[in-house]
Amino acid sequence: MSPALAWTRKHLLGLEDLSVAELEAVLDTAQSFREISTRSIKKVPALRGRVVVNLFFEASTRTRTSFGLAAKRLSADTVDFVAAGSSTSKGESLADTARNLEAMGVDIVVVRHPAPGAPHFLSRVLRCGVVNAGDGAHEHPTQGLLDIFTIREKRGRVAGLKVLFVGDITHSRVARSDIFGLRTLGAKVGVVGPATLIPARLRELGVEVHYDLDEAIGEYDVLNLLRIQLERQGQNLFPSIREYARLFGLNGERMRRAKPDVLVMHPGPVNRGVEITPEVADGPNSVILEQVTNGLAVRMAVLYLVAGARGAVEPAGGEP
Amino acid sequence: MSPALAWTRKHLLGLEDLSVAELEAVLDTAQSFREISTRSIKKVPALRGRVVVNLFFEASTRTRTSFGLAAKRLSADTVDFVAAGSSTSKGESLADTARNLEAMGVDIVVVRHPAPGAPHFLSRVLRCGVVNAGDGAHEHPTQGLLDIFTIREKRGRVAGLKVLFVGDITHSRVARSDIFGLRTLGAKVGVVGPATLIPARLRELGVEVHYDLDEAIGEYDVLNLLRIQLERQGQNLFPSIREYARLFGLNGERMRRAKPDVLVMHPGPVNRGVEITPEVADGPNSVILEQVTNGLAVRMAVLYLVAGARGAVEPAGGEP
Amino acid sequence: MSPALAWTRKHLLGLEDLSVAELEAVLDTAQSFREISTRSIKKVPALRGRVVVNLFFEASTRTRTSFGLAAKRLSADTVDFVAAGSSTSKGESLADTARNLEAMGVDIVVVRHPAPGAPHFLSRVLRCGVVNAGDGAHEHPTQGLLDIFTIREKRGRVAGLKVLFVGDITHSRVARSDIFGLRTLGAKVGVVGPATLIPARLRELGVEVHYDLDEAIGEYDVLNLLRIQLERQGQNLFPSIREYARLFGLNGERMRRAKPDVLVMHPGPVNRGVEITPEVADGPNSVILEQVTNGLAVRMAVLYLVAGARGAVEPAGGEP
Repeated sequence: MSPALAWTRKHLLGLEDLSVAELEAVLDTAQSFREISTRSIKKVPALRGRVVVNLFFEASTRTRTSFGLAAKRLSADTVDFVAAGSSTSKGESLADTARNLEAMGVDIVVVRHPAPGAPHFLSRVLRCGVVNAGDGAHEHPTQGLLDIFTIREKRGRVAGLKVLFVGDITHSRVARSDIFGLRTLGAKVGVVGPATLIPARLRELGVEVHYDLDEAIGEYDVLNLLRIQLERQGQNLFPSIREYARLFGLNGERMRRAKPDVLVMHPGPVNRGVEITPEVADGPNSVILEQVTNGLAVRMAVLYLVAGARGAVEPAGGEP
Repeated sequence: MSPALAWTRKHLLGLEDLSVAELEAVLDTAQSFREISTRSIKKVPALRGRVVVNLFFEASTRTRTSFGLAAKRLSADTVDFVAAGSSTSKGESLADTARNLEAMGVDIVVVRHPAPGAPHFLSRVLRCGVVNAGDGAHEHPTQGLLDIFTIREKRGRVAGLKVLFVGDITHSRVARSDIFGLRTLGAKVGVVGPATLIPARLRELGVEVHYDLDEAIGEYDVLNLLRIQLERQGQNLFPSIREYARLFGLNGERMRRAKPDVLVMHPGPVNRGVEITPEVADGPNSVILEQVTNGLAVRMAVLYLVAGARGAVEPAGGEP
Repeated sequence: MSPALAWTRKHLLGLEDLSVAELEAVLDTAQSFREISTRSIKKVPALRGRVVVNLFFEASTRTRTSFGLAAKRLSADTVDFVAAGSSTSKGESLADTARNLEAMGVDIVVVRHPAPGAPHFLSRVLRCGVVNAGDGAHEHPTQGLLDIFTIREKRGRVAGLKVLFVGDITHSRVARSDIFGLRTLGAKVGVVGPATLIPARLRELGVEVHYDLDEAIGEYDVLNLLRIQLERQGQNLFPSIREYARLFGLNGERMRRAKPDVLVMHPGPVNRGVEITPEVADGPNSVILEQVTNGLAVRMAVLYLVAGARGAVEPAGGEP
């Protein structure tokens, strides 16, 4: 069966509900697009004449750029609609803004919004496709997919691997999406961080909870270091940046306790010297930049599947 | 005669001077482009290799996005040059900015500017085409055209219909462009609003002036609700938002006095609960989102005609 | 030999190190692209499927727009990554930002940065091409190239001509790049301006230094008026704008002392009435707007050469 055939959804709102077959449909489609990025002409005509809008209510140059480039590689037209800080962040006018874009012929709305559930809300009021690019502390499904894609590419499988998330679990939509997808695919998940930043109900979900990174690190095949939001310091959720780095930062010494082939991941942007030292970020176990590269392929796959594109993934090479 | 043949202008500065044949040239061309938007590949190669710049000296995501998408559907390259709030809003450097863009090979400048007449000024200093996307309280011709297009599409004609504009007539470039175009095409126009917001000379132009919406509403085929600029409240031009909504807001009760098939229009963005209640905005008489859709077709037509494009309006389907 | 064959660099960091053959490779390639701009379809497919990112850490709508349009004319996809004023301007995260963009498959990074040497730094940490769009007071090589291109086009040669730079030489990356390129190609260079704004070591470089524009002006074939940064006034580097205009502004009276066919250049944006009066800026000797037009051709040439593109410079005319 062609990987795309398992995909029938019009939206990608989160990884919580996706089946094994759906997750694999995205990963396999992404694999085809990953190969295109090695060609000299890195474009396919799959979404020619379609319009993808980035509707971002939070600043994010990286994710927005990644989605924009993914859309362009599929030959879609793109529009950036950045509303961070504007009055449009209220529920009602979110719908009006999105309905207006849809009325302009937009095919897919890629939405980032501080309110959990905003993409789900839009999927109910719009007829076009909706892709969640991060909704509050809820989900960030394409980040989860690119993390899983990277693990699968590096290890050849996901099932049976042990993946540890380090840091602020409570506020991390990245961790949530990752955990949903990884567990569906049969990986074992652990978390470690300050007790104030680990939600109580995680254990009920079958996630192993640690508080000491040095004790836990040796068991895991993958370390996924979550970004510390420096602006949370004022909330007294962890003692200080220096203290955080001492307890949970990944440095060369701590790496000696890890498996020799452990994968070191980070969703970026990295606070060097906080979550990770430069030595480890740029070291042989780090796949941080490969995550970025794979992110493009995964986002191409998501846009392609959500658009219901079924055409061949062939280069647009015929133009003189 | 092909509709485009009636069009020989290099610029679209306003609807005041357009003849019946010119207005119909735009409307008929827009009709062809409207049909393209129902195809799976919504692009035509008409302006391939041409450059359209959005030169906006006032913030406007919606109109700018609409022009940008219209240009992209015609396969033009687009540049956004947003100068809202910058020092470039002075007359002299407006010319320098525009001349510089022209020197970069721009074919059409779409300009929005707080100063009435700014597009006309640019049309005199530039050799490339100029499209007015709103100049102060003067004209907003593509909004007028899309309103008229929507009326014609829904009613099959414009001549003989009665159209009522509700609200702040004095400051509305939308009302001005609409009124010029509608009267040229033989519609009858009325206005209603607070006396402080209706210009005295309108009656001389043959426009019927009302002050009581409930009395006037029953006579009209179309209600065009103008957006209230909330920032004008401080100027004491109307008592309060609540009072405005009570007297001039369109709600379900007031709709019962209107003709059953009355068209309800609004240029957007809607202040829900002020000019219109959600019930009416989303109700069966509302064509607000169709206005947005038609706006894209009308702007494609305007760019196409102003560019002097004479080629067939065929899809760019040959690329593999 | 095809002009492109003399070019083997992956980056354009400055004009200081370029040989005569390399400078001529850019100028000759730009000449081909200059001719394309007279065609009705101003696009060539040379960089189709490549990605050019504008990574700007200083605001610059004009240079950014020029690079963006140049990339689009070559059929490249473009991304704007504007970080002016953001925390990303620190050295380490500059590298991280650029490495992330590279990981997204970017082929050429066009970088503007307030720190001299920032593009050179990036060229060492990235595998993709780097083009300097201005680094502090160091170099602005594409501006230098477009100035030289314009002189060569107007005079048929560069060698033996005398070019005078007027104004703030110390802080001008434009003057630096121009001087490096012009001297390599055999022009003679002079500077004139307030003594506080002329670096002491210029004479050692063989540049003639003047302090009185009226005395110097008659000897020169080209006058290149540098932009006064009005914000430097507080630094007491020159007495006042009025005084600067009186001593170093180019006006009609002063022009009578110049050669009748002198070329008047300015990198823009012009402070009318300061560096130059409107009469001279818009007069017959001014080539200011031609510089802008040539800038596009030069930037197309630079992107084309840096990308290692070797294909024919033919229009992308085959699409229906």
